[in-house]
Amino acid sequence: MQALHLAGTLAVEEAFPMDNSDKKFRKLYETDIYNKDGLNGYAYVPNGIAVAVSNPRNETMPGTNPEQLLGLSLSTCMNATLQAIERENDLDHTAEVHVHVTMVKGTDGLEFLVHAMVSIPSVSYERAVELTNQAEQRCPVSKLLSGSINYTVETLQN
Amino acid sequence: MQALHLAGTLAVEEAFPMDNSDKKFRKLYETDIYNKDGLNGYAYVPNGIAVAVSNPRNETMPGTNPEQLLGLSLSTCMNATLQAIERENDLDHTAEVHVHVTMVKGTDGLEFLVHAMVSIPSVSYERAVELTNQAEQRCPVSKLLSGSINYTVETLQN
Repeated sequence: MQALHLAGTLAVEEAFPMDNSDKKFRKLYETDIYNKDGLNGYAYVPNGIAVAVSNPRNETMPGTNPEQLLGLSLSTCMNATLQAIERENDLDHTAEVHVHVTMVKGTDGLEFLVHAMVSIPSVSYERAVELTNQAEQRCPVSKLLSGSINYTVETLQN
Repeated sequence: MQALHLAGTLAVEEAFPMDNSDKKFRKLYETDIYNKDGLNGYAYVPNGIAVAVSNPRNETMPGTNPEQLLGLSLSTCMNATLQAIERENDLDHTAEVHVHVTMVKGTDGLEFLVHAMVSIPSVSYERAVELTNQAEQRCPVSKLLSGSINYTVETLQN
């Protein structure tokens, strides 16, 4: 589906409120990422991180893969959000996030199941569930995934 | 929102068809990813990749961030899918994927705008649009993001 080139618009109108449908945005940060190789090779940020990538089903190859990179993104985003929520509630940062990603094949082809598990040892389970729910609704990566039934979040018992 | 622990179910019932709502799945691969530090520190896969992460708005810190990690995941997944589609069509692999991620702040808090740009130099623009559309519908990361209006895909002119 061809769609509006939102990112380009944002790049031009730096520091001004943006219009995306009926929502107003202020740009805080932007970054560019490339994969020119495909399944086996490198993906990179110009003047930044480069990662070797390889077929996750070939165990002799050393690279990371989209499953792990998505889990690194989600776990960091979710835990950074939990850290902000802990700070707002005068709590020390004890939250940890574990993401399990499963590649499955079904009638609609390949899919990823993404399951985030949150533990917050310093508070009760009931309070941890509340804070997890807040993080799920505030974390930008969680918001992006929230339209998929393949994305689930769980609060772990201590 | 508390949800079913799908991943756990899948881990137990290895090699058997899985039931997720009304869909049947066969598991092909699974991986675990952790962030215990939050915004600044490390995220890692046990016995696998570890990445330094840091606040994207603090330019003196060297780490990567959820924006870049998501872009690495999406660009690799999309280009691996394009590579498979090229192979099915007896085309050499020439596809490249560039992802631009923008962090914005709006009335609903922080959000990421994710824009994927596909170029396939070996075919006409019209054919490249067709192949991009196929990849968008088959790539598992693209499927996960497809419920968000913040995710857009564009085919670039050669």
